[in-house]
Amino acid sequence: MLRYPGPADRTGSRRANLVLLLRTLREQGQVSRAQLAVHSGLSKATVSSLVGDLAQRGLVRPAGTTAGGQGRPGELVELRPSSACGVGLDLNVEHVGATVMDLTGEVLLRRQIACDVPASGPERVLDLLAEALAGVLGDVQARGGWVVGATVAVPGLVDTDGAVVRFAPRLRWREVALRNGLAARTGLALDFFGADNDANLAAIAEHHAGAAAGLDDFVYLTGDHGVGAGAFSRGELVRGHLGYAGEVGHMTLDPLGPWCSCGRRGCWETQVGLGALLHACATPDDPVRDPALDPDSRMALVRARAVSGDRRTLDALHQIGAALGAGVAVLVNLFNPAAVVLGGYFAALPEWLVEPVRSEVAARVLAEGAGGATIVASRLGFQAPATGGAAHALRRVLDDPATVPIEEHTEHTEGMVAP
Amino acid sequence: MLRYPGPADRTGSRRANLVLLLRTLREQGQVSRAQLAVHSGLSKATVSSLVGDLAQRGLVRPAGTTAGGQGRPGELVELRPSSACGVGLDLNVEHVGATVMDLTGEVLLRRQIACDVPASGPERVLDLLAEALAGVLGDVQARGGWVVGATVAVPGLVDTDGAVVRFAPRLRWREVALRNGLAARTGLALDFFGADNDANLAAIAEHHAGAAAGLDDFVYLTGDHGVGAGAFSRGELVRGHLGYAGEVGHMTLDPLGPWCSCGRRGCWETQVGLGALLHACATPDDPVRDPALDPDSRMALVRARAVSGDRRTLDALHQIGAALGAGVAVLVNLFNPAAVVLGGYFAALPEWLVEPVRSEVAARVLAEGAGGATIVASRLGFQAPATGGAAHALRRVLDDPATVPIEEHTEHTEGMVAP
Repeated sequence: MLRYPGPADRTGSRRANLVLLLRTLREQGQVSRAQLAVHSGLSKATVSSLVGDLAQRGLVRPAGTTAGGQGRPGELVELRPSSACGVGLDLNVEHVGATVMDLTGEVLLRRQIACDVPASGPERVLDLLAEALAGVLGDVQARGGWVVGATVAVPGLVDTDGAVVRFAPRLRWREVALRNGLAARTGLALDFFGADNDANLAAIAEHHAGAAAGLDDFVYLTGDHGVGAGAFSRGELVRGHLGYAGEVGHMTLDPLGPWCSCGRRGCWETQVGLGALLHACATPDDPVRDPALDPDSRMALVRARAVSGDRRTLDALHQIGAALGAGVAVLVNLFNPAAVVLGGYFAALPEWLVEPVRSEVAARVLAEGAGGATIVASRLGFQAPATGGAAHALRRVLDDPATVPIEEHTEHTEGMVAP
Repeated sequence: MLRYPGPADRTGSRRANLVLLLRTLREQGQVSRAQLAVHSGLSKATVSSLVGDLAQRGLVRPAGTTAGGQGRPGELVELRPSSACGVGLDLNVEHVGATVMDLTGEVLLRRQIACDVPASGPERVLDLLAEALAGVLGDVQARGGWVVGATVAVPGLVDTDGAVVRFAPRLRWREVALRNGLAARTGLALDFFGADNDANLAAIAEHHAGAAAGLDDFVYLTGDHGVGAGAFSRGELVRGHLGYAGEVGHMTLDPLGPWCSCGRRGCWETQVGLGALLHACATPDDPVRDPALDPDSRMALVRARAVSGDRRTLDALHQIGAALGAGVAVLVNLFNPAAVVLGGYFAALPEWLVEPVRSEVAARVLAEGAGGATIVASRLGFQAPATGGAAHALRRVLDDPATVPIEEHTEHTEGMVAP
């Protein structure tokens, strides 16, 4: 299908060029204006003017001069790390948290607050989310930066605007006005806040700088009490018409299986969710099932037992691996992904889960060689959704640097603004 | 995400404008040059020049003058129906066929040849496909038109080039060089031929002018011996990284279910394929199971029995409806479509299948109200894949009218070529 470029107005093309420079700087690190001109295809004069603009907005800074080479040395420019930041807010069964990503795409810091989310109810949890956010706003300010927005990662269905949680069975939330609640608590503007499904945001993080970097077609799986999927097709998330796509945890793969938090029977997450693992590998009073335990410490305990050859743990992992593979095979038949990225707790136990999933997929997928799908563990762990949330929040600057007001950043702009 | 329009060269923009006019004519029917200028945003002089170009290629013709209105009467232009046509070739378990679509999007004619495809083997079946194609090439020529290409609808996996059938379990085909085989038999150029999965092509047909017209997110289901899906997300087919997406027939929904043609157990199509229906509603010697029966006549027989209240038929349809709903619910949880279009034999029995599917989906989908998904029967019937194939073949003209050579169509171009 051909695309028809519309007429580009002058403001639009200047904005597009600012975006282009910002992205080039993000990929290349320290570069001279001449190199920026080569990479962007813009004239040197335009590049100088645009770099001046970005400097006035506090987004770039000088980075010394090029060493060696012929001709006079070029002045290098780089993104100013302590400038615009995005925040990803985590909303989980057992904790809330905040993750900060800076303009270069690096995760600066994280904060986490333990909390029994389903038992606490939405009002109390929104208080804690606002508290976590206030904490990182202070941290960022102390480093000389500022936060441009916050996106909440929700284990459930979020409306297309990112304003309301429609249904999050594991949290026992229905119709929670997340955006209004956070704006009221923080005094920040409504459009500071966004929200999306946790698996979608994690998939964005994996696509940005994770196991799926550069892949147009892949599926990411969250692995927590619930299981969700974020699927990319042609380089974009498959969202569906109301944004509710990817609810893999509630595929009925065993019509006579156990009851699920959604009120139905035999959902896939009753077989492969964290609850199924803990139920299979530990008695109710086992410390590994203590809800106050943070996810990473819990998985460290399970790992240690598996490494030591504990029979009950290994049997549980065997059972989870087979059920995980059966469901992943459905996804591979449907999406023909280049990769399936196992996230959350699955990613903490790759030695025991990846191989069983691979062999189930190879046995159950119609296309030979699983249609070219590789099964890989995420390297972003439980933090993938919040990391994706931060990347998502940061996009308002990356997609339109002119949203950042021009201010006096004299300490940074010296010699950078074109006359 | 912003898109950056590239610099438009002059040839590229003329081609894009030809495409634009052709599409406008397709949507509007008979229009004056002045109306074309309004619809396209192009100047009247450009429109006149482009219309002259299209006329020289034999794609448009005069259509009288506008009646009434103020000022001098405008000369109307329309697409020339007997001009460029696309052919969709059908490749099914029990027949091969050819469908012709003209430039206006109308289906001109169809030919079908009964054939036991799995038993005949690829060489014999390619002979028959070439025979069906030769037949319609003659028909089109007799009407003063010409065929620009043919796309084969394959119930199985096709490589991304559309050249080779990788695996079609119901046909018992593996690695069949479709394009080479047809080019060798017909003497036509290799690039005359394309191929795609039947469900993908049917989804294109539904999106073009069927139950999913205008929908960006929907799922189409074939219903024949095999079951496949064509899923649209954001207005485009979800193809996966090697083009093998949509293999829903081989989702394992019943690990202890019957053996499937793919060599595995409990695939969804063993529960809901045409074979399952026939097995449940008729004894082996029942005329409804005669393989020589064409699909429409067979479904007419089943319908008549259902209408007359035949208990065995109604029980069979009840069983199929429940199993169909269970699988459709998985697809709705995964894709959150605005509609699921039931094609093939499902579409011939909507009174007994649509309602059971709706209620299963309502009961099993996490999002309230099935996430807004409606369940509808296709109006294109068993012909949807071939119709989509013809539409696909026609796209080489619609996407680039300049591929049609400029010839002397004096009987049509009189007064149409700008001086």
